Amino acid sequence: MTVDVPLLLDLLGVFFFAVSGSLLAARKGFDLIGSVLLGSMAGLGGGVIRDVILHQGPPAAYSHPIYLVPSLAASALVYFTVKNVQRSGWLLFTFDAGGLALFCVTGTLKALAAGMNPVAGILLGVTTAVGGGILRDITANEVPSVFDPKDLYAIPAFIGAALATGLWHLGWLNLATGSAAAVVVFMLRMLSLHFGWHGPLAARSWTPRRAVRS
Amino acid sequence: MTVDVPLLLDLLGVFFFAVSGSLLAARKGFDLIGSVLLGSMAGLGGGVIRDVILHQGPPAAYSHPIYLVPSLAASALVYFTVKNVQRSGWLLFTFDAGGLALFCVTGTLKALAAGMNPVAGILLGVTTAVGGGILRDITANEVPSVFDPKDLYAIPAFIGAALATGLWHLGWLNLATGSAAAVVVFMLRMLSLHFGWHGPLAARSWTPRRAVRS
Amino acid sequence: MTVDVPLLLDLLGVFFFAVSGSLLAARKGFDLIGSVLLGSMAGLGGGVIRDVILHQGPPAAYSHPIYLVPSLAASALVYFTVKNVQRSGWLLFTFDAGGLALFCVTGTLKALAAGMNPVAGILLGVTTAVGGGILRDITANEVPSVFDPKDLYAIPAFIGAALATGLWHLGWLNLATGSAAAVVVFMLRMLSLHFGWHGPLAARSWTPRRAVRS
Repeated sequence: MTVDVPLLLDLLGVFFFAVSGSLLAARKGFDLIGSVLLGSMAGLGGGVIRDVILHQGPPAAYSHPIYLVPSLAASALVYFTVKNVQRSGWLLFTFDAGGLALFCVTGTLKALAAGMNPVAGILLGVTTAVGGGILRDITANEVPSVFDPKDLYAIPAFIGAALATGLWHLGWLNLATGSAAAVVVFMLRMLSLHFGWHGPLAARSWTPRRAVRS
Repeated sequence: MTVDVPLLLDLLGVFFFAVSGSLLAARKGFDLIGSVLLGSMAGLGGGVIRDVILHQGPPAAYSHPIYLVPSLAASALVYFTVKNVQRSGWLLFTFDAGGLALFCVTGTLKALAAGMNPVAGILLGVTTAVGGGILRDITANEVPSVFDPKDLYAIPAFIGAALATGLWHLGWLNLATGSAAAVVVFMLRMLSLHFGWHGPLAARSWTPRRAVRS
Repeated sequence: MTVDVPLLLDLLGVFFFAVSGSLLAARKGFDLIGSVLLGSMAGLGGGVIRDVILHQGPPAAYSHPIYLVPSLAASALVYFTVKNVQRSGWLLFTFDAGGLALFCVTGTLKALAAGMNPVAGILLGVTTAVGGGILRDITANEVPSVFDPKDLYAIPAFIGAALATGLWHLGWLNLATGSAAAVVVFMLRMLSLHFGWHGPLAARSWTPRRAVRS
């Protein structure tokens, strides 16, 4: 895997997440500038967090202006093509799943390439994958998707990060296998949405009636 | 422009944003400590994000205790002088605009001085300018001002960052021109609030009736 | 104080905050994965912010996998033992207070050991102590505990950070005195909750009737 392949997958991940951010901006009634900002936070946020944690210089999103291209393209696409924002929920979930799938792989690879141990690589891959979406959702004053108990979100990202780590250590990593890992993550996330696969609640013997806080 | 001029403008920006944070704290019914905290997050947050991204050592807000002075002064000012919190909306917007105006200039200059390219300089200037306000608003559980579709917020910051970059590259940057760029940003922001200047919605062919999410 | 004592107190602090995060996840109706995530954000978030600001390499939570142990243990504990989530409010406050008490001490010590001046040390200690809880609460779409005007939160953390700085500079710091400082913080926080000790409001001459924003 040359240095360009992770970049390509990374830029595609930025685009997918940025579309999800711009769609959410449209759904919240934000304007085009808000769409660019929320799209950029969703698309670039996970990678910025990753690069800040890796501590190897300014984040790629700032030092390489190419990262702005998919981010701006996503806002333009949403601006010109989305007809019915209220019915764009599945579109948002689908693009978000694409970003999740690519970022858990590229985030892990970047961590491993920086010399991190496998556990830290997986952890940073998951952080990269869920970070942008969490930033997007808390900025838009929503409970982040990753905490929705009706489907799986972090588990597919964890599996993708573990797959990428395995491929890396076995020397089997290339564009095909890396993309395959991302496809697995994407499918798992979409299937969990479709079939309502979900994990157990946070406290085993508790069935919440409504979310509360003292 | 000596090293002290950006520091002076930066400290003034901290003060303005910190007043906005302390005013929001008062409006939310927080106590004086919460006012200091929210004021500090608003005043220092943008610069901390900027310095973390620049990756040149601990953020100035931590390594130079002088940054705490405008932040604490702002909370004290709000504590002793604000009489009617419910009518302080315009005061909040005005101080916030002052911080925005100064930070988009100083953030850009600090990025350029650190050797960043012009695009990254503008991007980091805008990030510095909107970062503290976003931190302030999401911490107070509000949708950030920058996403309010009824006026312009990021556009004036972008213009200020672009002006600062231009002045820098032309060698025309000094206290007068830097301050003038900030005044332009401040005026644009205030005029957009007064006249309701705003951008197009995030999706061209969509008129939201209410903010929704599936 | 050898290098292991701060580590031990730090891991205990991670555990306490992670329990608070997992309890909040249970209260919000999140699933077990959400519990692990919110617990990790609460437990590891303050330390990650501290380490990013210290700018001495990747955060300990990523470079030392041992940090994941107390975080995962906390989610498991909540999963298996909590019977009535709605009545877990005091449990959440108590574990949160334990994390606050330990992190204001360990955060300050880590900052001082990195060569920061006393003011910055105290500031970073308070940031470490309140950071994880703020991340936890804004992620769960709650106004952070630190802003609750009905009790004291940041003040005990500030006192603990000041105590740790004093002990450090007097050369009196060891496991016993460091733990004693943490106990003081814990007691102050719990007493303020019990007796409703609180600070003055953010604007002296203002009694809010309800939280508003123009």
